[in-house]
Amino acid sequence: MKLTANDVFDRLLQDDKIYDAKGQIRFYLGNVDIIVKQRDVVGNIMQEWLEGWLKKNGVDYAPNPNSQMPPDFYLNPDNLKDDLLEVKAFNYNATPGFDIADFNAYQSELIEKPYMLNSKYLIFGYVMQEDGYVVIKKMWLKNVWEICRPMANWPLNLQIKDKVVHKIRPAKWYSKGKTKFLPFECLEDFVSAVNETVYQNPKTHAEFGEWLPKFLKSYRKHYRRNLVIPRWEEIKTKYVL
Amino acid sequence: MKLTANDVFDRLLQDDKIYDAKGQIRFYLGNVDIIVKQRDVVGNIMQEWLEGWLKKNGVDYAPNPNSQMPPDFYLNPDNLKDDLLEVKAFNYNATPGFDIADFNAYQSELIEKPYMLNSKYLIFGYVMQEDGYVVIKKMWLKNVWEICRPMANWPLNLQIKDKVVHKIRPAKWYSKGKTKFLPFECLEDFVSAVNETVYQNPKTHAEFGEWLPKFLKSYRKHYRRNLVIPRWEEIKTKYVL
Repeated sequence: MKLTANDVFDRLLQDDKIYDAKGQIRFYLGNVDIIVKQRDVVGNIMQEWLEGWLKKNGVDYAPNPNSQMPPDFYLNPDNLKDDLLEVKAFNYNATPGFDIADFNAYQSELIEKPYMLNSKYLIFGYVMQEDGYVVIKKMWLKNVWEICRPMANWPLNLQIKDKVVHKIRPAKWYSKGKTKFLPFECLEDFVSAVNETVYQNPKTHAEFGEWLPKFLKSYRKHYRRNLVIPRWEEIKTKYVL
Repeated sequence: MKLTANDVFDRLLQDDKIYDAKGQIRFYLGNVDIIVKQRDVVGNIMQEWLEGWLKKNGVDYAPNPNSQMPPDFYLNPDNLKDDLLEVKAFNYNATPGFDIADFNAYQSELIEKPYMLNSKYLIFGYVMQEDGYVVIKKMWLKNVWEICRPMANWPLNLQIKDKVVHKIRPAKWYSKGKTKFLPFECLEDFVSAVNETVYQNPKTHAEFGEWLPKFLKSYRKHYRRNLVIPRWEEIKTKYVL
C-alpha cells in the first residue's frame, strides 16, 4: 500500500487516535521487568516506532541505508526523490531539541539532491509522565523551512562550537511567544538563509560565489522550474524582529 | 530480608543464572511495539533493573534520595554507613565507559563520609546483539580502588576538559592487556592517589595541606582504626609501568 506523508499523518491522528494512546518503555531481563523512565530515550525511538507502524500497516517504504543522513524513510521505494519522510521527536515540556542537519553536509547535499528540500518532517511532541507513561501531546507535518528560523548574527539557528558551525537547530515553530526570530514563510526565503550562511560560515565562505548558481541549476534540472531567491538583506526584517 | 552486596552478587549468579538470561528493551505505543536497539540505553537502566530485582526478591534497601550522588542503594536501611551498593554497567565489547564520581565532589565527600570508600560496586558487562537482545557477559563485585588506576601525569584516571578536572574514570580492571597503568591493590594506595590528585588539581590545590589529616581523622573516628597512607612517589612505580 502506498501512502504519502500526509496520509501517514492523517491515519495516525484519525484512525490510530495517537493523542489518546499511552506508551511505555520496558526492560526485561531474567524474571524482572521494569518501566524505563528515561525521557531522552523517547526522542530516539519514535523513528523506530514509526518503522514498526509502517510495517504493521503494510505501508510501502524503504529505510535510508545511511542512517546518519536524512531522510529516515522513502515512502515511494520506486522513486527515491519524492515522498521523503523524516521523523523527529522532542520533549513537549521543553523546546524542540533535535537537530535538523549538519550545516556543512546539508548545504552540499542541497546542490546534489535539491528534492531534499521537499522532505516532510513528521514531528512528535511527547511527554513522559512521572510514572513513565509516554503520551504524544502534539504531532506536526512540516516542511523544513517552516521549522527553521534565524538567530542573532546568523540567518539560520545554528549550533556553534569553538567558532565552528555544526548543526542547524529548529525554531519553536508552534509558539507565538516573545521570540525575536520567526520561522521562514517559504522555500525561497529558507534557501536565501542557507546561501547567506554559506557566506558567513568560514568553512564554506569560499564556495559562496558558486553555491546559489549551482543549486538553482540543479533545482531547475529536477523540477523544470526556475526559483527566484531573494537576497537575505531584503527579507531579513520579516524574520528578525 | 537483609542481604549484603556479596549475597546479591551470589544470588544473581547462582540462583538467577544471570549469564543465561536474555534481556530486551521494548517500546509500546498504540498498537505497535518495537524492540529498542540502542546500546547506550542499557548502561543507564541496569540500576533501575536491580531496584526491580531487589523489590521482587523482597530484599531490604533504601534508594539514595540524591540520585546524583553515590551510592545507588543502602542495603541496610537502618544504617546508612555500611552495605552501600553502587551499580554500574558498560558495553562489554568496548572499554568501561561509566564515571566513578566527580573528583571535586568525591574528595570532599571522603572527608565527610569516609565509609564511602567501602561502597561495593556491582558492575555488569553487557552486550547488545544485532537483534536487540541484551546479554550479561560478565559481572563483578568490586571495591573502588580495584577499578581505579593512574593515567599519564596524574595519579588517577581523570576526565579533563579545558584543563579542568571532572570525572574519575575506571580502569579496564579485568584485562591484562598492554596497559601502562595498573589498578590499585589496596585502599591505602588509592587514598594516596586521591591525596596526590588533590595536590595536582588546581581547583583543590589549596586544600592539599589539610586534606589527608582531615580524612585520617574522620576515618579514625568512624572505624576506630589508624590508616597509614604511603606517599604517592613511594608507590607510583607499582602502578605506572
